[in-house]
Amino acid sequence: MKIHPMWHEYPTLAPELSSALTLIEKQITTNNTPVAEAILEMINGGGKLLRPAYCLLFSRFQDTDREKMIALAAAIETLHTATLIHDDIIDKSPTRRNQVTIQKQFGPDTAVYAGDYLFVVCFKLLAHYASSLRSIQQDSGSMEKILKGELDQMATRYQTDITIDDYLKQVSGKTGQLFALSCFVGAYESGSSTNFAKTAEKIGMDIGIAFQLLDDILDYTSSGDTLGKPVCEDVRSGVYSAPLILAMQRDRQAFLPLLAKKEQITDAEMDKLRELVIQHEGVKQAYAMARQHTDQAIAGLKKLPAGSARDDLIRLTGSLLMRKA
Amino acid sequence: MKIHPMWHEYPTLAPELSSALTLIEKQITTNNTPVAEAILEMINGGGKLLRPAYCLLFSRFQDTDREKMIALAAAIETLHTATLIHDDIIDKSPTRRNQVTIQKQFGPDTAVYAGDYLFVVCFKLLAHYASSLRSIQQDSGSMEKILKGELDQMATRYQTDITIDDYLKQVSGKTGQLFALSCFVGAYESGSSTNFAKTAEKIGMDIGIAFQLLDDILDYTSSGDTLGKPVCEDVRSGVYSAPLILAMQRDRQAFLPLLAKKEQITDAEMDKLRELVIQHEGVKQAYAMARQHTDQAIAGLKKLPAGSARDDLIRLTGSLLMRKA
Repeated sequence: MKIHPMWHEYPTLAPELSSALTLIEKQITTNNTPVAEAILEMINGGGKLLRPAYCLLFSRFQDTDREKMIALAAAIETLHTATLIHDDIIDKSPTRRNQVTIQKQFGPDTAVYAGDYLFVVCFKLLAHYASSLRSIQQDSGSMEKILKGELDQMATRYQTDITIDDYLKQVSGKTGQLFALSCFVGAYESGSSTNFAKTAEKIGMDIGIAFQLLDDILDYTSSGDTLGKPVCEDVRSGVYSAPLILAMQRDRQAFLPLLAKKEQITDAEMDKLRELVIQHEGVKQAYAMARQHTDQAIAGLKKLPAGSARDDLIRLTGSLLMRKA
Repeated sequence: MKIHPMWHEYPTLAPELSSALTLIEKQITTNNTPVAEAILEMINGGGKLLRPAYCLLFSRFQDTDREKMIALAAAIETLHTATLIHDDIIDKSPTRRNQVTIQKQFGPDTAVYAGDYLFVVCFKLLAHYASSLRSIQQDSGSMEKILKGELDQMATRYQTDITIDDYLKQVSGKTGQLFALSCFVGAYESGSSTNFAKTAEKIGMDIGIAFQLLDDILDYTSSGDTLGKPVCEDVRSGVYSAPLILAMQRDRQAFLPLLAKKEQITDAEMDKLRELVIQHEGVKQAYAMARQHTDQAIAGLKKLPAGSARDDLIRLTGSLLMRKA
C-alpha cells in the first residue's frame, strides 16, 4: 500500500504503516461496491497517517507483538477516517486530499452510512486486538470526548465572541483527544506501565493541539491546491479558528462586517479576510502557540527512555511545525 | 421515566426498562443543549423498547447482577436510537413517534453528530458493563452486519426486480441482527452457556424478521397518525418491502408505471399503490411469512427451561403479531 513519502525517512515505521492500510482494506467487505471503492480511495488517498504513526512509535518502548500494534494503529486511522467522512457532510466539503469527498460524489446519505461503517470497523478491530476491557474503556471515553468536542463546536458556530479558550477547549476535545488516544494506546497496549501510558497521552494532547493550530494556520497561508481542499471553508461554515480569533482580539470591528455575511461571503471578501488576519498578526500569534505546545511535547519526549523510538518521536514532532500542507 | 403502557402487563420488566431509560439519560452530557434535548426527547418519546426488553428477559434464566443487565439493555436501546437518527437523515423523515425528527428540526448536520454521539455512548456502556472482550467482539460483529445490511439496502434502492430473498437477507442483516444481538447479550452476559446464548441469538433473529415484516405490513394498512410517521415513505425513497415485492410477484406490470415515478410519486398515486398491494395479496402473504417466523421463534422458546422468563418471552413474542402500530 502506498504511503506518504515523508515516511521514507522513518524506515522502521514505513512498512508498518503500509501494513496497517492493507489491514483496513481487508476489513472493507460491504457488497455496496461504489461505497467500498469510495472508502478505499479515501483510505489510500495519501492521508498523513500521523495518528497511527504515533501509536506505533509509542509501542516501540517495549518488545511487543507487532501484528497486534499494527491492527490497533489501523483501528485509530479507521476512526479518524470515519470522523473525516462525517465532518465533510457537516461542512459540505467538495474535496479533501485533492479527491472529491464521499458526500459530494455519492450524496450525504451514503456518507452517513460509510462513516458509520468505519466506526464499526474500528470498534471491531479494537475488540479483537485490544488486550483488555480497560483499554476499550479508555477508547470509548476518548471517543466520547471527541464527539462532545464536535457538538460543542457546532453550538458555537458563527459566534463572533468566541474566545481563544473556547477554541483551545474544542481543539483539545477533538484533535487533541485523538492524538492523545493514539499515544496512549500505543504505550498501554504494548505493555508499558499505566504511568508511562498517561505520560504518552499527555504528550499526545500537546502534539494534537499544535497539529490543529498548524492546520488552521495553513488555511490562511496556503493555496487550495497545496492543501488538497478549499481554503477557509471553516470560516464560511461558521467555525472560527485561532488565527481569526487572535486577530479579532486586536481589532474586532475590522472583521464583523465580513463575518456578518456568514455563508454568503464571496471569494473576494474571503481574500480580504485572510489579509486582515495576517495584518493583525493572527497567524503569527497562532504560530507562537503552536510552537509552545510543540516545545512542551518535545520537553516531555526528552524525558522518555533513550533510543530510536524516542529519537523518531522527537524528530517527527519537530518536523510538524515546518509542514506546508 | 415513562415507558410504553404495554409493559404494565410485565410487572418485573417494567421498572427495569424504566431504569434503563434513566441510565441513558444520565449519559447524555453534551453542552450542546438543543442536541441534548432532542436526543432525550427521542429517547423518552415512547419507543417500544422491545430490544432492551428481550435482552432483559433472556437474562432472567440466571440469577445475575440486575444493574449490569439494565446497563447492557440501555446500551442496546442507545445503539437502536443512533441508527434511527441516521436512518431519518437518509429517508429525510419529517416525523417519528409523532415527534419532529432531529434531522428535520436541527438539520442533517446535527443529526449526524447526534447519532455518532449515541454510538459512542453505546460503546462506552458496553465497555464498562460487559464481562469480557468476547462479548464486545460479538457486539462489534453484529454491528458490522447491521451496517452492511444498511449499505446493501441502499445499493438496491429503486430496483424493481428485487426478490423476496434479497429483502429477507437485508432484513436479517438489519432488524434481525439487532434483535439477535439483544437476546444473545441478555443470555451470555447473565452467565448462561455459549450454547444457550447461541440459541437465544437464533430465536432473536426470527423475532426480528417477524417484527420487521409486521412493520412493513403496517405501512400498507395503517394511517400515519397511528404509526406516528408518514406511511409508505420507504416506497418514495426506493426501499421496496415484503408486501410490495410479494404483490409484484403476482402482477409486475401493474406496479411498474407507479414505481417509475420514484420520489415524484403523488399522494393519490401512493394510495393507488397501497390498494394494488392489498388487492394482489401482498399484505396477506407477508403476514403469513411473519406468522411463520413467529411460530418458529415460539417453538424455540418452548424448548427453554420452564419459568416466568420463558412465559413472558412467549407471551411477548406472540403479542407482536397482533400490534397495530
